[in-house]
Amino acid sequence: MSEAHEHEIRVRYVECDPMGYLHHAKYFEYLEEARTEALRVQGFRYRDLEASGVFFVVAKLSCRYHKPISYDDVVTVETSIDRFTRTRIDHEYRLLCEGQLMSEAATTLACVSREGRPIVMPDHIWSIQQASKPRRVDH
Amino acid sequence: MSEAHEHEIRVRYVECDPMGYLHHAKYFEYLEEARTEALRVQGFRYRDLEASGVFFVVAKLSCRYHKPISYDDVVTVETSIDRFTRTRIDHEYRLLCEGQLMSEAATTLACVSREGRPIVMPDHIWSIQQASKPRRVDH
Amino acid sequence: MSEAHEHEIRVRYVECDPMGYLHHAKYFEYLEEARTEALRVQGFRYRDLEASGVFFVVAKLSCRYHKPISYDDVVTVETSIDRFTRTRIDHEYRLLCEGQLMSEAATTLACVSREGRPIVMPDHIWSIQQASKPRRVDH
Amino acid sequence: MSEAHEHEIRVRYVECDPMGYLHHAKYFEYLEEARTEALRVQGFRYRDLEASGVFFVVAKLSCRYHKPISYDDVVTVETSIDRFTRTRIDHEYRLLCEGQLMSEAATTLACVSREGRPIVMPDHIWSIQQASKPRRVDH
Repeated sequence: MSEAHEHEIRVRYVECDPMGYLHHAKYFEYLEEARTEALRVQGFRYRDLEASGVFFVVAKLSCRYHKPISYDDVVTVETSIDRFTRTRIDHEYRLLCEGQLMSEAATTLACVSREGRPIVMPDHIWSIQQASKPRRVDH
Repeated sequence: MSEAHEHEIRVRYVECDPMGYLHHAKYFEYLEEARTEALRVQGFRYRDLEASGVFFVVAKLSCRYHKPISYDDVVTVETSIDRFTRTRIDHEYRLLCEGQLMSEAATTLACVSREGRPIVMPDHIWSIQQASKPRRVDH
Repeated sequence: MSEAHEHEIRVRYVECDPMGYLHHAKYFEYLEEARTEALRVQGFRYRDLEASGVFFVVAKLSCRYHKPISYDDVVTVETSIDRFTRTRIDHEYRLLCEGQLMSEAATTLACVSREGRPIVMPDHIWSIQQASKPRRVDH
Repeated sequence: MSEAHEHEIRVRYVECDPMGYLHHAKYFEYLEEARTEALRVQGFRYRDLEASGVFFVVAKLSCRYHKPISYDDVVTVETSIDRFTRTRIDHEYRLLCEGQLMSEAATTLACVSREGRPIVMPDHIWSIQQASKPRRVDH
């Protein structure tokens, strides 16, 4: 994605904790949904990748929580690709509510086989980086 | 189980909603854990059943919520088998906090293959009913 | 709602279990989202109700699972009001994927105060039933 | 804690994804439970802290996933305090299965009021650091 992909998610009641805020662990469920939708606009369904034996697992992640997000808020997740190699994809995320930055996060996905062994991603997936202009590409 | 099997679970912060109560959908995660532990004391690990191609899926369930359960409460789940056939198991559950009845539930599990087709449960699983004295057994 | 309200939800990866199916406990998170959206089209935000001291808690529920729902499926939740009193609302739900009935469920909500005591719902909430033509109304 | 506090959690079916592994977002629910139990052995119940108006919210976190954790595995979470100030606590975590390191994580908690404003933690909480010998203490 040459620009960040935007995806909106409304906060569910069940996702909020006794403080009334989106629980910090739920953010990663939002990031997963957001990058799945970013992939979809690139022409890929993650379910098809898995069916073809290509899996992406989270190898590491980090998140900073600036402001709490409340029940029923609509969160805009901006997803961009920071770095793209034949074995890994680094995503960056910004979570906004009504234009205000609430949280920033980053994940590193590793490409693995059904058995969990690291693999080199197939050419048709690798082609995403050409369309998406990540900040860094390592061939 | 000739008597109900008891299993204790302490309520996590993440499982509570903005009212500060265990969210109503989480109860079924507790029931699943409780019947897995009831199965374990019968000598079966559900992970081994799945590895051997025998799956149990929830075909129907119901729950009545009498009193709310709060964060950090210790819930005792009493699990008993109400009815046992070669294709289905009906469980009944009582959830208690400090001896007080908070909720009652029931589930029906169907025995299926990896592909989700109904199957007749293998003899070694069927033998559970002999040990567990369900209220009703249909051969 | 004179007809069932329809709401679509795409199944998240995190919501699926090792069988690859939407976990049976997650259905109730979908039902909650669906009836919140049904309420929204009636002109009410549940967050506003709570802010005004009116809470709806689940008093009982039931669900029958006909066919498994898979990762990335789009589920249409049809929500209708079956019965409406000054203290309780009974909803019925049908979950469909591509027009096929996957599951049916029912919930009973009780109107309570912030402290959890049963209350008679305020007039402006009660007016919903006039617009929504539930099958049964008890004054 | 002069040494790391250890807490065991068995992986629930509902917490696993279609690969059969503990979903990466669920790790943070385990960390929360583990540090709550570490606090309990120090003589504090987090529910009491909240009742007294003292809240700890996650300000940032990070996690590295070395090996996947499977359904029904028993995870040992080692929790230690890395840094302790009057406004923040940094925890470090190691997740092990049968002695093997599966994952490492870190969180920073901020002490806030019920309204979410940063506050200086009360003396009785601050006393934890004396007992727990964090690697770094800033007065």
